[in-house]
Amino acid sequence: MNTAPRPLALHEDRLFSSDPVQRAIARRLFAQVEELPIVSPHGHTDPSWFADNASFVNATELLLVPDHYVFRMLYSQGVSLDALGIPRADGSRAAVDPREAWRVFASRFHLFRGTPSSMWLNHVFHDVFGLRARLGADTSDLYFDHITEALQTANFRPRALFERFNIELIATTESPLDPLQHHAAIRESGWKGRVVTAYRPDPVVDPEHEQFPDALRRFGEITGEDVYRWDGYLRAHRQRRAYFAAAGATSTDHGHASAATADLSRAEAERLFDTVVRGKASAAEAELFRAQVLTEMAAMSLDDGLVMQLHPGCFRNHNRQLFEHYGRDKGADIPLRTEYVNALKPLLDRFGNEPRFQLILFTLDESTYSRELAPLAGHYPSLFLGPAWWFHDAPEGMWRFREQTLASGGFYNTVGFNDDTRAFLSIPARHDVARRIDCAFLAKLVAEHRMDEDEAAELVVDLAYRLPKKAYRLP
Amino acid sequence: MNTAPRPLALHEDRLFSSDPVQRAIARRLFAQVEELPIVSPHGHTDPSWFADNASFVNATELLLVPDHYVFRMLYSQGVSLDALGIPRADGSRAAVDPREAWRVFASRFHLFRGTPSSMWLNHVFHDVFGLRARLGADTSDLYFDHITEALQTANFRPRALFERFNIELIATTESPLDPLQHHAAIRESGWKGRVVTAYRPDPVVDPEHEQFPDALRRFGEITGEDVYRWDGYLRAHRQRRAYFAAAGATSTDHGHASAATADLSRAEAERLFDTVVRGKASAAEAELFRAQVLTEMAAMSLDDGLVMQLHPGCFRNHNRQLFEHYGRDKGADIPLRTEYVNALKPLLDRFGNEPRFQLILFTLDESTYSRELAPLAGHYPSLFLGPAWWFHDAPEGMWRFREQTLASGGFYNTVGFNDDTRAFLSIPARHDVARRIDCAFLAKLVAEHRMDEDEAAELVVDLAYRLPKKAYRLP
Amino acid sequence: MNTAPRPLALHEDRLFSSDPVQRAIARRLFAQVEELPIVSPHGHTDPSWFADNASFVNATELLLVPDHYVFRMLYSQGVSLDALGIPRADGSRAAVDPREAWRVFASRFHLFRGTPSSMWLNHVFHDVFGLRARLGADTSDLYFDHITEALQTANFRPRALFERFNIELIATTESPLDPLQHHAAIRESGWKGRVVTAYRPDPVVDPEHEQFPDALRRFGEITGEDVYRWDGYLRAHRQRRAYFAAAGATSTDHGHASAATADLSRAEAERLFDTVVRGKASAAEAELFRAQVLTEMAAMSLDDGLVMQLHPGCFRNHNRQLFEHYGRDKGADIPLRTEYVNALKPLLDRFGNEPRFQLILFTLDESTYSRELAPLAGHYPSLFLGPAWWFHDAPEGMWRFREQTLASGGFYNTVGFNDDTRAFLSIPARHDVARRIDCAFLAKLVAEHRMDEDEAAELVVDLAYRLPKKAYRLP
Repeated sequence: MNTAPRPLALHEDRLFSSDPVQRAIARRLFAQVEELPIVSPHGHTDPSWFADNASFVNATELLLVPDHYVFRMLYSQGVSLDALGIPRADGSRAAVDPREAWRVFASRFHLFRGTPSSMWLNHVFHDVFGLRARLGADTSDLYFDHITEALQTANFRPRALFERFNIELIATTESPLDPLQHHAAIRESGWKGRVVTAYRPDPVVDPEHEQFPDALRRFGEITGEDVYRWDGYLRAHRQRRAYFAAAGATSTDHGHASAATADLSRAEAERLFDTVVRGKASAAEAELFRAQVLTEMAAMSLDDGLVMQLHPGCFRNHNRQLFEHYGRDKGADIPLRTEYVNALKPLLDRFGNEPRFQLILFTLDESTYSRELAPLAGHYPSLFLGPAWWFHDAPEGMWRFREQTLASGGFYNTVGFNDDTRAFLSIPARHDVARRIDCAFLAKLVAEHRMDEDEAAELVVDLAYRLPKKAYRLP
Repeated sequence: MNTAPRPLALHEDRLFSSDPVQRAIARRLFAQVEELPIVSPHGHTDPSWFADNASFVNATELLLVPDHYVFRMLYSQGVSLDALGIPRADGSRAAVDPREAWRVFASRFHLFRGTPSSMWLNHVFHDVFGLRARLGADTSDLYFDHITEALQTANFRPRALFERFNIELIATTESPLDPLQHHAAIRESGWKGRVVTAYRPDPVVDPEHEQFPDALRRFGEITGEDVYRWDGYLRAHRQRRAYFAAAGATSTDHGHASAATADLSRAEAERLFDTVVRGKASAAEAELFRAQVLTEMAAMSLDDGLVMQLHPGCFRNHNRQLFEHYGRDKGADIPLRTEYVNALKPLLDRFGNEPRFQLILFTLDESTYSRELAPLAGHYPSLFLGPAWWFHDAPEGMWRFREQTLASGGFYNTVGFNDDTRAFLSIPARHDVARRIDCAFLAKLVAEHRMDEDEAAELVVDLAYRLPKKAYRLP
Repeated sequence: MNTAPRPLALHEDRLFSSDPVQRAIARRLFAQVEELPIVSPHGHTDPSWFADNASFVNATELLLVPDHYVFRMLYSQGVSLDALGIPRADGSRAAVDPREAWRVFASRFHLFRGTPSSMWLNHVFHDVFGLRARLGADTSDLYFDHITEALQTANFRPRALFERFNIELIATTESPLDPLQHHAAIRESGWKGRVVTAYRPDPVVDPEHEQFPDALRRFGEITGEDVYRWDGYLRAHRQRRAYFAAAGATSTDHGHASAATADLSRAEAERLFDTVVRGKASAAEAELFRAQVLTEMAAMSLDDGLVMQLHPGCFRNHNRQLFEHYGRDKGADIPLRTEYVNALKPLLDRFGNEPRFQLILFTLDESTYSRELAPLAGHYPSLFLGPAWWFHDAPEGMWRFREQTLASGGFYNTVGFNDDTRAFLSIPARHDVARRIDCAFLAKLVAEHRMDEDEAAELVVDLAYRLPKKAYRLP
């Protein structure tokens, strides 16, 4: 087909409008934020990378195998997970040469055209690895060799990349059962990189989680509390939250199927908890339990100051066969319609007006931006809107987020960007996209005379740097 | 920070695309409508302003205290309502110097960046008051003094502003219990300004309204009907509708939680009404009652010719604590997902094909524009679409309304703009924004060769002037 | 009003951005696809047109009377169906001079401004009939005479138009009860035009369809199977599917009220079917039956290779009075909110990972694009997204489809354009619009440096030609 590899370039004006008036404004705004350090208050990198500082293995193991947003697209077009060497639920893996797996990917890279994955990957290829030819069947081996070799050098170890990426702070996410030894190792190592944790208690909060019984038992062991009684269970949370806060956490994170909250009496909550720990909870009772725990978490946040994040509305592991053979997180998470106005009322009736309390809301249901979330955040002092999330953090999704939350929520009830990723190398690319989209969005407002450029120049720094630090109470 | 106040300007091309082709077309279209009189068929100004023609008191009392879409944003960012002097539910008010309250607002005016509130307020500051410096902490006292002084002059009395604003007609909204004495006073005063009313029977229609029992009793006293019997209750409505029509009303307005309608038999309706007046209605029965009354109102519209408006889908006074301490309308109204297709069927099965009947539908759930409302309005002769409403009357919301209703509904099943406001001084600003967005939207269609410019030039006058007069049957 | 008719023109750059950078790219991309043959894998033209090749009668009978998306707009603005000569349910018709009916339409053509109907009609007027004056009251008779005369000539017979339109293949849609004699006649005629059928079993699948009992009886007669037993009913489907495949069908089509699927045990399915054939099915049982049949159809597709299409989410014939007097398909079909994630799970749990199985999903609920459909199609190998459909196939709707499905679904999980129309003469116009919107969309991505132009040039041919052929398994 192609006789010579096509050049790979990152245009300096990418994502800015092609209208010259808007583009010129966007450029000036971007100059305010391009070099700002990255604040990453919510993500899923592995703290052991920074604790151990070991080299990554090869292109396939780094960029393909762990990223289910990349391999899901290949899978959707008929590539088997075994052809890529994705680990199975039983821990086994098909014997696949990583170079071959990379070829499967490279020869289908056109499937990603126009998607955020292609944008992030090209950014990584170009800026992190210095590649200047487009990925394709013809350049597959070139890529594999070039990347794999680079990874063996000191400049491509995790801490070196962290510094090169100009990351001021990154938050990881851990279960209450995690001993946080990697975070301790990082602190003790003398390395200056700031890697903090976040408290994500889903395994001990969701009775429908397959690990719940075991997780609850270990929760008791770790804390020494009687976690089979409601008051002991709550004390165990308080203890682990304090432990996480001491390890730098400033936030908690809750990934529920819905946004339901509840405000049961103590006696009701005890009865419900008793049903849950006996493994007798119906689906409705499990939902009510998760709802009640959210309100308890809010109460604890008032005391310990941890900022609360709620990420609802995903049907996890929707593909039954894939889940059985390959386990969780294989690209089969599908968003659900989500309701907030009635769901959050019990929690907001108690804590919605507390100035000490900060709840950051996310959604996978964009129809709630203008209808529910922006009006809620534009009223309640405790509510803030997390950025366009997960399936929606593409340029179009980020634009819709701004366009649909601005009128009722303004800019100052939002909290800047979350990269929310385990794809460490893509973090600069993701923040670059988010900053460019905010610049492009503000450039349009300036070009249409809805805001003066000096206001936009201040705002764009708020969005990229000041608001996330404030919203997440980062030092 | 800033050493000198920043200039405040309203650019003549604001809200038009920065693309020169589109901007030039938009300018030519706007020239057709810029000077047209304002027709305001749906709003919430106080008729006593025009009856008494008394001066407004000061900047804070005029622009801040009554406008919960302004103070809600301040509240969402931690400003207490007492700091602004907002009246409490018991009628008391924190002792706040209005100049100080204005400073609280002025120093946080950046929170409104990009929102419609900032656009409307800047328009008022610039065009109504002639201010030429941007509002901020540094100009707070300048603003307060300048505005407060201006308000004491004859040119800033309500009737003078009404005339200066080139308002051809404004509709207010009153309860059936209202004696309409202000409208009578206006008519008797000899002043030429046309201020009509609209029939908004919610307090005597919604069994869950806290004033319902008392309102029903007064409804009976005013009309001399036995409003505790279904036929007397309906006769009371007919009588008050006739009274409103005689005072200039051409429409009714119904602010329900959902769009549910019903078509019960007479016997069923009587039984339901009996349950309602005994205070025994369940939530479902209250909903059914409201649904049935909508259909009865439609039947009356067929007789008396009043145009019917349905504004469903809001959770009013969502913030329990604020409602208890400060009462209704404190910026805590939150939109709800709303269904129309099944909900409206009972009413449409009876009256949907009646050429005499006109029902104008509004929504707070934008997902219904293309899915439900435009297809319904593009079919039923009796249905029309009200404009982007309430949380959605920002430029982006107006644009989405056009973009999502055009294909199935066209332009001619829409009814022009409603300002829907009690912020009297902002009325020219709001109509200006609506006209500009329609011009910008049509300019894009012309620039992309989907419509000839002569068609757009005719259409933009229809949208700004002819359609509202026709849809609301205004003389 | 107008002293001379206004010119009618189709601008060569219509639907492209007015931004010169984007327009230039769009032009170059469009040059790749403008002349490609039309592949129309899903539509509702009448195969007898191509079998008999008889002349169409006149302008009104061709363009107005059969097109309920045209006359619905007139009806919504107060024109009676009798004034247009629309046939009634009893087969009678008001005695209306077709020239007069055309005048009613022509004098109200402004009602269509900005709608896709006006774009398609103007394209037909200009390109098919060579008209150069805009339709209006003043040109009504000119149009009627010109079109009616042209229709009597050989060049305007169905086969000549088919060839002139450069149609490579068109699919019609037939009931299992259809003998497919027109398709046989076409094949036997020696004419080279490819007109295939598609298997649309709704009348024998939907227990709530008013023709269900009669259709089921005839289904048994045609197939010789005992269709009152579950296994015989399924065998009858297999037999007719094979018959359709032999007549060129490569797909089935299912127009259900919801996307519900089910996976009942054989015994459960037999019991349910027994209830259905006895006419005793409740609404919930009817829904469950339709849901189960979808899964059975998927199982058959695995065997016979027919591609499955699911078009859910429409409330058909919503206007009771119109349905009673005029019957089905009178412009009163209204979209409904539609859920896919839970609804499709039973079917996907069985067949979602089968490489042989292809299910093309459509929606009338645009809120599902980014939330449900793109994430599903971006994961499951068997799922593909049909294009913006029915009420959403206007330029804005097509743009939203791309903008909201791209991030999670990419381009390659979509299947190109469906015209889905019975308005034969508008088919080139509809494909022209779809190709232009894809070019304009890709031009924006190129202009904003998100894709190289050579990639877009390849992709636009995929979207216009290669993907529909592949998705529908067209030879």
